[in-house]
Amino acid sequence: MRENLRKYLVEFIGTFFLVFTVGSTTLFGASGVIPPIAIGFALMIMVYAGGHISGGHYNPAVSLAAVIRGALPLSQWVPYSVAQIVGGVAAAFTVNYILSPQNYQQGAEFSIPALIIGEFLFTFALCYVVLLTATSRPVSGNSYYGFAIGAAVTVGAFAVGGTLCTGAFNPAVAISLGIMHAAFWKIAGITVLVNLIAAIAAGLTFKAVTYNE
Amino acid sequence: MRENLRKYLVEFIGTFFLVFTVGSTTLFGASGVIPPIAIGFALMIMVYAGGHISGGHYNPAVSLAAVIRGALPLSQWVPYSVAQIVGGVAAAFTVNYILSPQNYQQGAEFSIPALIIGEFLFTFALCYVVLLTATSRPVSGNSYYGFAIGAAVTVGAFAVGGTLCTGAFNPAVAISLGIMHAAFWKIAGITVLVNLIAAIAAGLTFKAVTYNE
Amino acid sequence: MRENLRKYLVEFIGTFFLVFTVGSTTLFGASGVIPPIAIGFALMIMVYAGGHISGGHYNPAVSLAAVIRGALPLSQWVPYSVAQIVGGVAAAFTVNYILSPQNYQQGAEFSIPALIIGEFLFTFALCYVVLLTATSRPVSGNSYYGFAIGAAVTVGAFAVGGTLCTGAFNPAVAISLGIMHAAFWKIAGITVLVNLIAAIAAGLTFKAVTYNE
Amino acid sequence: MRENLRKYLVEFIGTFFLVFTVGSTTLFGASGVIPPIAIGFALMIMVYAGGHISGGHYNPAVSLAAVIRGALPLSQWVPYSVAQIVGGVAAAFTVNYILSPQNYQQGAEFSIPALIIGEFLFTFALCYVVLLTATSRPVSGNSYYGFAIGAAVTVGAFAVGGTLCTGAFNPAVAISLGIMHAAFWKIAGITVLVNLIAAIAAGLTFKAVTYNE
Repeated sequence: MRENLRKYLVEFIGTFFLVFTVGSTTLFGASGVIPPIAIGFALMIMVYAGGHISGGHYNPAVSLAAVIRGALPLSQWVPYSVAQIVGGVAAAFTVNYILSPQNYQQGAEFSIPALIIGEFLFTFALCYVVLLTATSRPVSGNSYYGFAIGAAVTVGAFAVGGTLCTGAFNPAVAISLGIMHAAFWKIAGITVLVNLIAAIAAGLTFKAVTYNE
Repeated sequence: MRENLRKYLVEFIGTFFLVFTVGSTTLFGASGVIPPIAIGFALMIMVYAGGHISGGHYNPAVSLAAVIRGALPLSQWVPYSVAQIVGGVAAAFTVNYILSPQNYQQGAEFSIPALIIGEFLFTFALCYVVLLTATSRPVSGNSYYGFAIGAAVTVGAFAVGGTLCTGAFNPAVAISLGIMHAAFWKIAGITVLVNLIAAIAAGLTFKAVTYNE
Repeated sequence: MRENLRKYLVEFIGTFFLVFTVGSTTLFGASGVIPPIAIGFALMIMVYAGGHISGGHYNPAVSLAAVIRGALPLSQWVPYSVAQIVGGVAAAFTVNYILSPQNYQQGAEFSIPALIIGEFLFTFALCYVVLLTATSRPVSGNSYYGFAIGAAVTVGAFAVGGTLCTGAFNPAVAISLGIMHAAFWKIAGITVLVNLIAAIAAGLTFKAVTYNE
Repeated sequence: MRENLRKYLVEFIGTFFLVFTVGSTTLFGASGVIPPIAIGFALMIMVYAGGHISGGHYNPAVSLAAVIRGALPLSQWVPYSVAQIVGGVAAAFTVNYILSPQNYQQGAEFSIPALIIGEFLFTFALCYVVLLTATSRPVSGNSYYGFAIGAAVTVGAFAVGGTLCTGAFNPAVAISLGIMHAAFWKIAGITVLVNLIAAIAAGLTFKAVTYNE
């Protein structure tokens, strides 16, 4: 139990800093190149810091992909997701406290097919990269997994974030965007659903492309 | 056979995301610094994800260089290239579906000598880096190969992409640029040819600078 | 003693280049994306260069967190801090000598709660990343610690630097900003205090999330 | 002898691509953030590609520092430097051939003390990072040395390149800048001299901060 509490604390801290970076770099009006790099780096540093304790997911979709792959017990999916969402929500309220409301950007409206394609593709890519770099036996002990995982979010944010979809790739981020008034709740809800479906697709793809792991 | 199908699937997926990132970051009108970084990172994450399964080429020129170096059987070059081109074409049609046609940029016209020099130099550099970081025995097991390979494309895109040539450095990308109306077919065709010649040059250079590998 | 002098020299050199990069990229009027990347890279290269000699702290807050974690003897905290502050101050005077005074930017005024939140959060994140990537047994010998540590500063600078606080995350940098006329002394003083409190919090958090290290 | 020719060929190729990237990203009028990143990445990929063959110096100053540290025989300094300078000059003529002369930027005039300080500091930092990450026994086999070395040039280019000095940090680059009409010959000459002095300082500093290596 104590071992588990450590993991939940690490997931809380990591998701807090991920979402705080999402909020502070996008709501303070930073230029287009900054949020994808800052957010990818935020994920990277937290993956490297906490990966050897909790796995460093910071994302209910990633935890779901890990369950399908057999890297996380199913019974841990709910507490992991709760720790991640609570961490994200805490960061969202911190951002709300710091920013005066009139600085808020309105959430953008996206076409539903574009939103689904964008969130599906890069949540899939993120989970695929996590499973193959961080949970695959032939490459265990490598030093690149955190960089690859953070860069997957950077690529997705550059490729589809803000144009096709919010670029959350993460239900905890999607919910936090709603709280920060940076996404409409309808869009956040669809994002959560698509993220989880993409995670399942990535878990099954991992099984298809690897052998007996 | 089943083992081979796994490799083709990994090559398909990786080239899909590489070309999707090329299309979405260049055709959505991103600023100059974004496509080279996003595309290099897209290649990097897919190299790290799939390198231990298929080699992570995502590029018929790289596969050809690997054949010359002895890291891929000659009989695999055609199926690898087919998987890569099909992945790229699928991404190109996805980009075409998402973008409304009037947003398409016209492909640029380049001088033929500049195009040849630009595509030759950085396809050579890319293949040279792949062979020496990912297939060279004295450095086997290193953690940097994916970053170096992705960064080779970033450097090439900054150095010559868009000014001297399209910056494909990859026949699957060149063909996909044609489909996305981002390059004239004549330029795409020359690019494919130059890419393959550069790959042969890199394979021979690998043999010249290494000993008995 | 001779062994210790080597460490102090490494801490002096690293902090010199860290602060010189802070001063030269922010006071020469670089655009918003440059300082966070340049400063994070400056820290990274010095961590990788000197990490195996002195630990590569270059920051009295990091050294304090290392003391709490048991990675640095308490008796070394004062000489480490002195070497770091002297290195930073030397860099600040070098910047002052090179720049003509009329080019100086005025230090910004920040709200005190925002300043405290910004400096606390990312000094905490920096120290948390240092302790978990560079001093944690399960990941000893990894190749990513310097990148993660440098990137923690990059993330913090993008997330809160210049908007909520100076983005020092480091008492030696805070003092040097005062000398370079880039921060008011009152703000520099609060920053030093908050940095040290955040370091203590990170040291205790390390103990909470790890077991028997 | 054959073994040596391999090394010279690797040094020629690496310096060619380093200088070609310097020329093509600075003379085609790229924005401020691109050259430091592109040039640092160009050095990184060539260090990772050729490091296990020739050491991956691509810089007579780095080779001189390696001589002082005992990582390169003194008798190799001249042939290494010749291979590097020939590679750089070949790249400079390639850039001259591609670019029409009227696009050339004039070399900037710098104050001599600023030029000396800028080139000294970051050639020192570059050589210091090379020696401590790539030739130091306690960290042999690490995967970060190429990234740290490339990033040292990126930091230097951001910190002092173009404002205090040309940002060559490398005699082969300085000479090539003269050929590309991107630096006055007087400035290139001072740069070469300062680069070599900084290399000697870094070699001696390596001996001062390490023990019995």
